[in-house]
Amino acid sequence: MTHTAHWISALRGRFIALEGADGSGKSTQLARLLDLLSAQGLPVVNVREPGGTSVGERIRDILLDRNSEMTLHCEMLLYMASRAQLIDERISPALRRGEVVIADRFVSSTYAYQGAGGGVPAEDIDHVAAAALRGVVPNLVVIFDVDSVTAAKRTQGLERVGKRKAAPPATASLFADRIEQRPADFHARVRESYLAQAKAQPHRHLVINAAQAPDEVWADLCRGLEAWCAANAVA
Amino acid sequence: MTHTAHWISALRGRFIALEGADGSGKSTQLARLLDLLSAQGLPVVNVREPGGTSVGERIRDILLDRNSEMTLHCEMLLYMASRAQLIDERISPALRRGEVVIADRFVSSTYAYQGAGGGVPAEDIDHVAAAALRGVVPNLVVIFDVDSVTAAKRTQGLERVGKRKAAPPATASLFADRIEQRPADFHARVRESYLAQAKAQPHRHLVINAAQAPDEVWADLCRGLEAWCAANAVA
Repeated sequence: MTHTAHWISALRGRFIALEGADGSGKSTQLARLLDLLSAQGLPVVNVREPGGTSVGERIRDILLDRNSEMTLHCEMLLYMASRAQLIDERISPALRRGEVVIADRFVSSTYAYQGAGGGVPAEDIDHVAAAALRGVVPNLVVIFDVDSVTAAKRTQGLERVGKRKAAPPATASLFADRIEQRPADFHARVRESYLAQAKAQPHRHLVINAAQAPDEVWADLCRGLEAWCAANAVA
Repeated sequence: MTHTAHWISALRGRFIALEGADGSGKSTQLARLLDLLSAQGLPVVNVREPGGTSVGERIRDILLDRNSEMTLHCEMLLYMASRAQLIDERISPALRRGEVVIADRFVSSTYAYQGAGGGVPAEDIDHVAAAALRGVVPNLVVIFDVDSVTAAKRTQGLERVGKRKAAPPATASLFADRIEQRPADFHARVRESYLAQAKAQPHRHLVINAAQAPDEVWADLCRGLEAWCAANAVA
């Protein structure tokens, strides 16, 4: 915990989304970030997708169910329904109170998974996002970038030692249940989509090499956040 | 069954939605229309909203639950998710096979209830509909128009004799559960929205005075369908 107070308070009232494939180490870094923010006394709201509200958790149950046979358009709309509720019920109120909102996945995942991965046209997602998000998008999206071989090895390792299902938040099991079954080029398209999103809007993306060891990823995350805070400080 | 064969076969491969407030007599007319189509040997697919598919019925359970606390944007997106699945799984395949599709409510209800009634901006619904429907809209929308006092009397009458909950399809109980609790001006806005939709696209709407007795409504429905078939016959 060497990177602290001098920059972290700039995260108040900001909305940060963590993104990346399962096996990217996102959950580990999320837990560490939450610890840091708490240790610094910042009020934090941590949300997960899909879910995070009573209705959202019921939507999550449908999305998570291996037996749910649904089209990608239906899947995309269910994610957006959960997200619209999450915004109105938790994210917007927290931001108005000046709290830090940390989301484990947000709309970038829809572009990556249902869009680039699954084939839903980006303009369909744009249309639905306009109505569902109504301008509430993360100030910063952190992408934990990792090649699919490394990610798969880590996921399998976690499954072998029985840690995967217990790991909070449960996004991991969701993706294992319905999405991780998909072929290798699906994962390649997801990764490319994340990188393309970052390239299109570099000022609100931070790409971190998540193939590194956890401590190195953490150091990069802290450096990246510090630099972003410096660049986006309220005058 | 006086209005028959000479026009009804023109409904093959067409998509008809029945719309109107609860208490408009929509369910009674739907049952009668299905009987007529069956008697004429036309293959018919009858769908209800929300629901009509395995995933859609699970979405329906969320929407139907009195205890579901959700924003109108979430509600609208859930209806659209159910609708997107219904289109891909049942409506489009049936239309391709040349069957008649009869829907108990479709996207007109979203504009009427969540839009005009609830306050979701029409452009938000337009955006989501573009992605969810992908051009699959009813060829004809039949609106059973009734003033709210008459509708309320009928609904209460049905509840008194214990018929309401048993009446197929169960859209009635859905609206009783979550939507019919809303104030009188809500119902006035819903009715005005239906009429405005019909006025904006008269060629694909049929407005029927549903305050009449059931036999009169049925006669108007048959006359209206016959006229529409004549005007829209494939040359």
